[in-house]
Amino acid sequence: MSLRAKALYTFQSENKEEINIQENEELVIFDENSVDGWLQGENSRGERGLFPASYVHIIRSRSGSNLTDQSFSSPGSSPGKDLSYIHTPSTTLPSDDDDDWDDWDETSTVVEDDDHRRGANGHSQNQYSNPNVHYRSKPYMDRQDSMSSNRKGSMVGRNLNRFSSFVRSGVEAFILGDVPMMAKIAESYSIEMGPRGPQWMDNPRPFSCSIEDPTKQTKFKGIKTYISYRVTPSHTGRPVYRRYKHFDWLYNRLLHKFTVISVPHLPEKQATGRFEEDFIEKRKRRLILWMDHMTSHPVLSQYEGFEHFLMCGDDKQWKLGKRRAEKDEMVGAHFMLTFQIPNEHQDLQDVEERIDSFKSFAKKMDDSVMQLTNVASELVRKHLGGFRKEFQRLGNGFQSISQSFLLDPPYSSDALSNAISHTGRTYENIGEMFADQPKNDLFQMLDKLSLYQGLLSNFPDIIHLQKGAFAKVKESQRMSDEGKMDQGEADGIRKRCRTVGFALQAEMNHFHQRREVDFKEMMQAYLRQQIAFYQRVGQQLERTLRMYDNL
Amino acid sequence: MSLRAKALYTFQSENKEEINIQENEELVIFDENSVDGWLQGENSRGERGLFPASYVHIIRSRSGSNLTDQSFSSPGSSPGKDLSYIHTPSTTLPSDDDDDWDDWDETSTVVEDDDHRRGANGHSQNQYSNPNVHYRSKPYMDRQDSMSSNRKGSMVGRNLNRFSSFVRSGVEAFILGDVPMMAKIAESYSIEMGPRGPQWMDNPRPFSCSIEDPTKQTKFKGIKTYISYRVTPSHTGRPVYRRYKHFDWLYNRLLHKFTVISVPHLPEKQATGRFEEDFIEKRKRRLILWMDHMTSHPVLSQYEGFEHFLMCGDDKQWKLGKRRAEKDEMVGAHFMLTFQIPNEHQDLQDVEERIDSFKSFAKKMDDSVMQLTNVASELVRKHLGGFRKEFQRLGNGFQSISQSFLLDPPYSSDALSNAISHTGRTYENIGEMFADQPKNDLFQMLDKLSLYQGLLSNFPDIIHLQKGAFAKVKESQRMSDEGKMDQGEADGIRKRCRTVGFALQAEMNHFHQRREVDFKEMMQAYLRQQIAFYQRVGQQLERTLRMYDNL
Repeated sequence: MSLRAKALYTFQSENKEEINIQENEELVIFDENSVDGWLQGENSRGERGLFPASYVHIIRSRSGSNLTDQSFSSPGSSPGKDLSYIHTPSTTLPSDDDDDWDDWDETSTVVEDDDHRRGANGHSQNQYSNPNVHYRSKPYMDRQDSMSSNRKGSMVGRNLNRFSSFVRSGVEAFILGDVPMMAKIAESYSIEMGPRGPQWMDNPRPFSCSIEDPTKQTKFKGIKTYISYRVTPSHTGRPVYRRYKHFDWLYNRLLHKFTVISVPHLPEKQATGRFEEDFIEKRKRRLILWMDHMTSHPVLSQYEGFEHFLMCGDDKQWKLGKRRAEKDEMVGAHFMLTFQIPNEHQDLQDVEERIDSFKSFAKKMDDSVMQLTNVASELVRKHLGGFRKEFQRLGNGFQSISQSFLLDPPYSSDALSNAISHTGRTYENIGEMFADQPKNDLFQMLDKLSLYQGLLSNFPDIIHLQKGAFAKVKESQRMSDEGKMDQGEADGIRKRCRTVGFALQAEMNHFHQRREVDFKEMMQAYLRQQIAFYQRVGQQLERTLRMYDNL
Repeated sequence: MSLRAKALYTFQSENKEEINIQENEELVIFDENSVDGWLQGENSRGERGLFPASYVHIIRSRSGSNLTDQSFSSPGSSPGKDLSYIHTPSTTLPSDDDDDWDDWDETSTVVEDDDHRRGANGHSQNQYSNPNVHYRSKPYMDRQDSMSSNRKGSMVGRNLNRFSSFVRSGVEAFILGDVPMMAKIAESYSIEMGPRGPQWMDNPRPFSCSIEDPTKQTKFKGIKTYISYRVTPSHTGRPVYRRYKHFDWLYNRLLHKFTVISVPHLPEKQATGRFEEDFIEKRKRRLILWMDHMTSHPVLSQYEGFEHFLMCGDDKQWKLGKRRAEKDEMVGAHFMLTFQIPNEHQDLQDVEERIDSFKSFAKKMDDSVMQLTNVASELVRKHLGGFRKEFQRLGNGFQSISQSFLLDPPYSSDALSNAISHTGRTYENIGEMFADQPKNDLFQMLDKLSLYQGLLSNFPDIIHLQKGAFAKVKESQRMSDEGKMDQGEADGIRKRCRTVGFALQAEMNHFHQRREVDFKEMMQAYLRQQIAFYQRVGQQLERTLRMYDNL
């Protein structure tokens, strides 16, 4: 049975089995059932081969429907739904993966730093929420890889979309029991029940870490220039010197290793003007916030690679530790093995509701953070432009009056003219104060909002993992009920899904705790600076007013 | 000898001897010597008749020059000056009247209230400084009038431009001795020598006057509606009730009577929205300022018509007093007879320099007042628009964050959310405070600047009077030197020119004194309100900050 389809995005073939497809191109599909996210078909130029199923939508006739085997896992789709024209950018066939993204406004999940999104190996960077940005993540596009995982026998069908974070993160493999328990696991992260649900157990050796003194360094006799930061962890008190590229290396390790955890994004890269004072200052402020989040996170702060980053002061040791971190086996799916979860029973339905509630919250908070970011950015612009200009024009106006008063000598009223001139300078100065003020308040607010934009943008993918796990539980239970699966295997899937659920709830909990601290602090700092600002303006004006006293 | 000329402005004939001319129309002039400001010629439609000399410029050939008789009175024109294309909007031929206006920037002398400019009988309202606005002041356009005055024999030539304020005000007639001294003059205004030169003697019975309680009144069973103000002079303490039209009547009497005095302009008329609260409030504020200037002026405050306006509470008496004021003979030229001047010798050259210095000052102050008016008006707009909007958007941003925090119930952090919401409302409120603030400061500044725009716009004409008088003195002296005039007559002209000079200097002095008081007060009031504003903003923020204390 051949079907018609339309290409949603342009795809460039990278292997001989693949064919190019152009956005909006009409295609013929030989089999609507994709294999590991790939469909076989023919493009409008008669070339035959494979292309990603998620890049196309299949144009179906109303009668033919071969969807029964997937329909159970699509709780959102009502039976009467018109399926004749299904838009499936993220999966081949409608599944519960779909609806997670549809209501997530694309403008609110754009992360400021494209480099990170492209470079990330772990999380998906919301590529599905922005249909105009589709990057090929090579490792997960490789058919040999995914086919080999297909060889391992499990009765439960694997998710067909190899782009899904559920698959890419390794959580699918973990849930299905494809990741063998290891004999000895050095790492272990415990989840305990707290007053508001599961929470990460605190880092037994908490610490903080300062980032100071960005200094321009040169290499190769001045040909290469870079900025070095003094990084001093509190528990050693010994500074190490790190460049942005070291942070970037660490960040990519974190993405690679930590599923279910919202890794804070690094401050944006900037190609030009890397050494401009304002940029260096901004990057430093944002690295400090990033570091605060790293050290405050019970799991991330204990990561061996992070410890290496914070403590290693020797070049040779650095390289050894770097290689060790890169060979770490407890990444992705295996990282899930490091969790110790409490015995408390949690109803899966309740967990799912908890997560849905968090999802709504995170969506709204993401929107709000974006809104406030836009407002604050515009306010910065107004401070530097409009506000400054208005006050300076007022100052100039007073100056001009003052000058005119000097022009008729017998009546030059020097003291009054002088006071008015001073008033003019005061308003010019107030204009400058307005222009300077964002350094004291709005910049810090924007720094924090940027951090939260990054953290929030990770959650759709993380929540997606849990959704995928739930689907597997339901599917396996159904198969077990129908006698198609051993109950033991189904129980294993359910048990591993619990682990994912606990981890996600702990991460949500951690996010909320930090959010409360951070936003309280952000608001207080902003208000304090604002109060100080208006007081300074008032004081300047008071001093100026006194000049008129004895005229 | 016929000459070509070009019409500078459109002129509509009002008598059968006159012809229409269109702006830019080519004309033929029969005689380049105008009579009382009128030229005879032919327009492009072949119509022959009279048109105002000041409405055209004559296109001269380089060779022909019949200017010798005027050249003495044109100190600014160097002998080598190219006279082939002389632009003479205000006089037929170049004279010292000319250069007074050329450097007076037209944008800076635009008076906000066209109605007053049109309605004024006394001063010229700078019609020459703004070539796009030419109103016909009927009384002075009437040739019969000016010709009859020409009949009175004086050896010194009369100014040919009947539009000139020098002529219109009656100062020319006064200088030339055409105004006979009257036997008994009830009015008398003394000028004394003060520390900074001639000054008006104080009003022996100084008083102030309040304007309060604008109240909507109806007449003819509600068909006619108007606003009545309670006007209470301090020396009687008895209120009278006056409408704007009463003020307007008084204002026109003042313009008619007082030469050499800068009569403050009334606040603008407004055809629509006359009863809107903001307009009523603004008119009241500006009438109060106007009244303050009237009562503070040693001459204006003693005017009988003003006394009548302030005291008459009876309708019948009002009409009688009104008619009496309108029949006042001591107006214009005759008003000059009421001055008592000191005996001190003043060198005319020195007086001329004093006046030139004042002229430069007034020009610059006029520009500055215009500049500050523009800045302040724009600032009002920003307060109501941009500033308010920015703070409200910030407030909304905080509100939105606050709402998102409530969406994940176990972590709704109500207290924090509440504090952030309160912060949002505070900034929305600060936005409103910005929008409200002009009522407290910028409006008052604009009121005062508007008063000064009016006062300053009178000075070019007043200075013009003195310039005309100087020219007559020089001309008569030359004629006396050449034996063409009796020395006694020349001395009379010089003596009367002294009177004009003393009066003008007294008026300049008064202006400066008021300016110092008014601008000091304006600046202090502005600064006080600004300080109070920034303090209120700071206090609001402080109260808001306290909400975060016990979270």
